[in-house]
Amino acid sequence: MKLFEIGELSLLKRIRKRFKTGSKDVVAGIGDDAAVVAPHDQSLLLTTDMMTEGVHFDLKFTTWFQVGFKLISSNVSDIYAMGGNPRFVLLDLAMDKKTDEKSLESFFDGVESAMAAYRVELIGGDLSSSKAGAAVSATLVGYARKPVMRSGARPGDKIYVTGKLGDSACGLKLLKIIRRPLSLETGEKSDKPVGWSIMEPLVRRHLLPVARKPGKITRIATAMIDVSDGLFIDLSRLCDESGVGARVSMKHLPLSSQMQKAAGALGIDPYRLATSGGEDYELLFTASPKRKVDAVCIGEITESDRVFIDRNGREYPLSPEGYQHWH
Amino acid sequence: MKLFEIGELSLLKRIRKRFKTGSKDVVAGIGDDAAVVAPHDQSLLLTTDMMTEGVHFDLKFTTWFQVGFKLISSNVSDIYAMGGNPRFVLLDLAMDKKTDEKSLESFFDGVESAMAAYRVELIGGDLSSSKAGAAVSATLVGYARKPVMRSGARPGDKIYVTGKLGDSACGLKLLKIIRRPLSLETGEKSDKPVGWSIMEPLVRRHLLPVARKPGKITRIATAMIDVSDGLFIDLSRLCDESGVGARVSMKHLPLSSQMQKAAGALGIDPYRLATSGGEDYELLFTASPKRKVDAVCIGEITESDRVFIDRNGREYPLSPEGYQHWH
Repeated sequence: MKLFEIGELSLLKRIRKRFKTGSKDVVAGIGDDAAVVAPHDQSLLLTTDMMTEGVHFDLKFTTWFQVGFKLISSNVSDIYAMGGNPRFVLLDLAMDKKTDEKSLESFFDGVESAMAAYRVELIGGDLSSSKAGAAVSATLVGYARKPVMRSGARPGDKIYVTGKLGDSACGLKLLKIIRRPLSLETGEKSDKPVGWSIMEPLVRRHLLPVARKPGKITRIATAMIDVSDGLFIDLSRLCDESGVGARVSMKHLPLSSQMQKAAGALGIDPYRLATSGGEDYELLFTASPKRKVDAVCIGEITESDRVFIDRNGREYPLSPEGYQHWH
Repeated sequence: MKLFEIGELSLLKRIRKRFKTGSKDVVAGIGDDAAVVAPHDQSLLLTTDMMTEGVHFDLKFTTWFQVGFKLISSNVSDIYAMGGNPRFVLLDLAMDKKTDEKSLESFFDGVESAMAAYRVELIGGDLSSSKAGAAVSATLVGYARKPVMRSGARPGDKIYVTGKLGDSACGLKLLKIIRRPLSLETGEKSDKPVGWSIMEPLVRRHLLPVARKPGKITRIATAMIDVSDGLFIDLSRLCDESGVGARVSMKHLPLSSQMQKAAGALGIDPYRLATSGGEDYELLFTASPKRKVDAVCIGEITESDRVFIDRNGREYPLSPEGYQHWH
């Protein structure tokens, strides 16, 4: 069935039934003019992210499940980057009315799967149609007792990152070669430009990214941001907000062995992927050198100079490279 | 200048500077991973609405200013319909990178104008590009001491509406005849299918709708919804949520004289526009018959029957007509 055969009202009913909220904090979820959430004694965190067809996702090599999953992950990542606890989602969805019902189901399967992983509840949204290309956006609501801002880094703080960088960007390069969707959810294999054991984790990082939960980092981080547009651009943002500089050692950047192998096979510089690839959804944060930290130290905060040191010990200016829309 | 020449980062800086928040409740606005809002002792209201080019707005007869203004109004209307106080906005914006800078400026002028009218602050959002057609969405955050739900109507309650119905739908019909944008903001006149004094308020209701603030209604309404998809569909929703029926008198529906004249000139039934036109952004609510109410009574809540009585006294079943996406 196509969406225009189902209709907005009956679809809304289905969604409402499927995403019935259980939490007592939700006074009213889907079904009124606005969602109603009980007052809370912690700070309220609000973030939103939009994904458009042909720009953020290409259905030639992404499934609708993956689009739904990633939409939630990318928003949760922003709440995590504030040291917050994600709680509620509002979803905006504009699809062509000739879209197949199965696509929509698959999208909501992905959303639901991510919601379960992050323990968040859908409390509202808007369904509409689009003339050309789908657009989806989510707003995530969370709470934090003491939010970790981008602005708290001080000279002398060490700079840390929580996991491998560049895997997602490398996965995207691989997908562009394969040029068809991979159903990672069901464990499907594929034509191999590199071995499947190398390729699978990279492609997964791109298609089904899992946002990094900060845990104890929340208590020790002086500043934090998620790596979504690329290490250098996101580090520059943190430095801008804190009014400081940074000194990063390329040799300390955490790169996965799979990414280095795949980059080698593709003839791409793995450090370029790691510094400007984007969509890592890892946490980049700073902490006092006195703190014991369970993450990889990649450099330190300076008064104002922003440099990176390559593997031969040469210094270069660190500039905000990364993915910019409209460029 | 085109958007791709400005770039996302420099655009973000401009927006941030322009929409600097003043309220002490905003701990962090634009510029971190998520906005941070201070805890509040009232219920939190959250709503979102998306508008896509070619579906919700057609740039052949709408200006970008009007799109921005309407996006905020339609969301504020949902907060008002809960008896709430709108406070914060998050904005998602996907435009073609070849869009002219002036269009974007005009869009933000409209957003800002509406924000000033409703006294809300922009605290976050997402800028991205789209391959084909623009998509904009806003999430509105508000507070209410005692939210007015759709579910509180009881048999015997009177049904009220706050203002004229069908003006907006009639304005849209007129615009489709004129087939070009009207700069109502600067007081421009136009080619006239009917007199300008008749046409202007109708077209304005469609292009620059102002959400109805409930004021004292909040204290007396047993149930409330905003009329956004059309009187009958929205009344049906209120009845569904309350588990009741309704009896509406067509002769009591508030129609403007301009709408009746224009509908006559266009050969359209004005009552059809009033019952299923949509985008009125008036409030539809119920209240005990003992209450003194400053709004137009159009009928009363019944146990379960849903009927309307035409101007000749004949009864018809009241069905949820109105605009449905994907139909």
